[in-house]
Amino acid sequence: MTYFDNAATTFPKPRAVTHAMAQAVLRYGANPGRAGHRMAYETAERVYAAREAVSDFFALGKPESVIFTKNCTESLNTVIFGLARRGGHFVCSDLEHNAVVRPLEALRRKGECTWTAVHIGETDEETLANFENALRKETVAIVCTGASNVFGKRAPLKGLADLAHRNGVLLIADAAQTAGILPISMQKDGIDFLCAPGHKGLYGVMGTGILLCNSERALEPLTYGGTGTLSVQLTQPKDYPERLESGTLNVPGILALEKGIRFVQSKGSKQIYAHEMHTVKKIQEALRQMSNVLLYTNLSEQSQSYVPLVSFNIRGLHSEETAAQLSEAGIAVRAGLHCAPLAHKTYGTQEMGTVRICPSVFTNEKDVNSLLNSVFKIAKAI
Amino acid sequence: MTYFDNAATTFPKPRAVTHAMAQAVLRYGANPGRAGHRMAYETAERVYAAREAVSDFFALGKPESVIFTKNCTESLNTVIFGLARRGGHFVCSDLEHNAVVRPLEALRRKGECTWTAVHIGETDEETLANFENALRKETVAIVCTGASNVFGKRAPLKGLADLAHRNGVLLIADAAQTAGILPISMQKDGIDFLCAPGHKGLYGVMGTGILLCNSERALEPLTYGGTGTLSVQLTQPKDYPERLESGTLNVPGILALEKGIRFVQSKGSKQIYAHEMHTVKKIQEALRQMSNVLLYTNLSEQSQSYVPLVSFNIRGLHSEETAAQLSEAGIAVRAGLHCAPLAHKTYGTQEMGTVRICPSVFTNEKDVNSLLNSVFKIAKAI
Repeated sequence: MTYFDNAATTFPKPRAVTHAMAQAVLRYGANPGRAGHRMAYETAERVYAAREAVSDFFALGKPESVIFTKNCTESLNTVIFGLARRGGHFVCSDLEHNAVVRPLEALRRKGECTWTAVHIGETDEETLANFENALRKETVAIVCTGASNVFGKRAPLKGLADLAHRNGVLLIADAAQTAGILPISMQKDGIDFLCAPGHKGLYGVMGTGILLCNSERALEPLTYGGTGTLSVQLTQPKDYPERLESGTLNVPGILALEKGIRFVQSKGSKQIYAHEMHTVKKIQEALRQMSNVLLYTNLSEQSQSYVPLVSFNIRGLHSEETAAQLSEAGIAVRAGLHCAPLAHKTYGTQEMGTVRICPSVFTNEKDVNSLLNSVFKIAKAI
Repeated sequence: MTYFDNAATTFPKPRAVTHAMAQAVLRYGANPGRAGHRMAYETAERVYAAREAVSDFFALGKPESVIFTKNCTESLNTVIFGLARRGGHFVCSDLEHNAVVRPLEALRRKGECTWTAVHIGETDEETLANFENALRKETVAIVCTGASNVFGKRAPLKGLADLAHRNGVLLIADAAQTAGILPISMQKDGIDFLCAPGHKGLYGVMGTGILLCNSERALEPLTYGGTGTLSVQLTQPKDYPERLESGTLNVPGILALEKGIRFVQSKGSKQIYAHEMHTVKKIQEALRQMSNVLLYTNLSEQSQSYVPLVSFNIRGLHSEETAAQLSEAGIAVRAGLHCAPLAHKTYGTQEMGTVRICPSVFTNEKDVNSLLNSVFKIAKAI
């Protein structure tokens, strides 16, 4: 199978990641922070090393403010519900994933908060002006994706952070499609809360996510329970990470994630980005030459505005049908709405959805040729 | 290391479990339910097979009502917050873990619900009478552990289910210490919601939990987000499991959990229970003969009232100190409060905590002898 579904989860994983996961079960099989014996201490040390790796990678400078979650969606829910207060207001972009929109809509339906989605424009200035216009005195936070999971279109997070802080508002960044691919510095970029999956651009395994807290504003926990600390209290400990990490941690996933991050560091995020951007540009150029192919990105002119990802359709064919035909030919892509209905509304692709192509560091020329040959055949047969 | 910390997480894991986890990354590496290609379908099928295995094991009869969570704590939070309504009341036992007590206390502090903890008595009749007396017209649910994680003392769940249903109340069971060890039938026992970890008696890996829903009463989701279904809706899908499973699933953990359950089935829960009970009885009898050892269980007379677990202290030594000395001797146990302050209050061990010994199916005579020799030496040196 030729795999181009890396925006859903990267595949394959680096060998060191799978190895670390198995080693975690064999050597670090105790429950960290829950016992008074050697293996539990060693496991806790390995988990802390993973926290340090995440903190360093995103220039957070506070390993204890790295929260391990089960996925990016849990990270986003933790921040959004953790900041929500009755009468509060959130602003997000019109490219957000359901992991942002559904929690916001749940708050609205409960009568607790309101939210506004604003358009990511052609230019950063336009986008920032749109966000600025949407701010209200009761706005709690801006929630914005680093890049659309459907169209790859990027948002100006640094500018949004400045805008947010000038207005006493927090910035929550959804790095589902950017962590590991674009440089992110919590300190320099001024991001207050960063949410990311462990299993996409960071090359960890499914079942892992992270939440980085860079704000004085303490989050209300989403879940409460045993933390291995301050057990006598009926209330959650106040300090991170325990405050937001109740119950047994996913030790195999966390130790694998550390190796995923080390892998990205050894390859270099810049080099990974360059390789993937080169790959998608090649794909885009070839698709542009094919009749019956509709493209939704224009990477060559504005590559700073996109992450390496191509969304397309074949004229007259539903995206799911194109994906099914590609699957028959041994090519893995994702089709449909990609859990992001707002983005499709913005691009006018609600009916058809789109076919998404996303490479990884492992994608090679042979993969690209297989993909292009198959798309060509399907498009020609229309 | 001789491992007796199986109530925190079982160690080692069956080989098939580690193998399945690694295979999940190598062969089922696609995001299930999120794509239109072969590997994603195959992964989704494997996840569904795991749902069926869980449903069968607990006689739920509804694989789609098996919810995969990250740990038992998340399962408990999902049910408790999912049922809570303003002015509601919960009843729990005085042996509950912080995974139950802290969510209840959080609801109380928010002014949303109240809760009452009642004593698990010497007899089931006494216990049931205590629960009955605590019920109010605004009681939503009884939340009760199958057995104390500190003292092993069991609660009469079947009787509690009957009591609950006679009073129009729901029963939530915390099976953290009983799943895989005691027979649990959702249908026969009348449990409305069962919460369990995947990594203890079910022999899966850390990072997995399950929530079984056996009630007409639909739970409000704890998190909202992408489910791969009904993407165009801004609201969460109504049906289980998607309603309660937002974001990417822990595929390696879930596929490993299936193998853990198959392992338990192949050994037989009854046989595992018999082996572990035989082991702890032997330990208990030996400890009883040692001077300076304080025991908190009396398994031989009332073995139907306990799960296979022994809590003890050495007179004059803090439980953490005993555990540290045992660790020096290569023995892994857990000491302290075990995230269950209520239980220690009940037993009067808040100051010292207790040292907990919990075997698994893999515990053998050599392990028992090492443990007993080491405890003997420490107790003698007092």
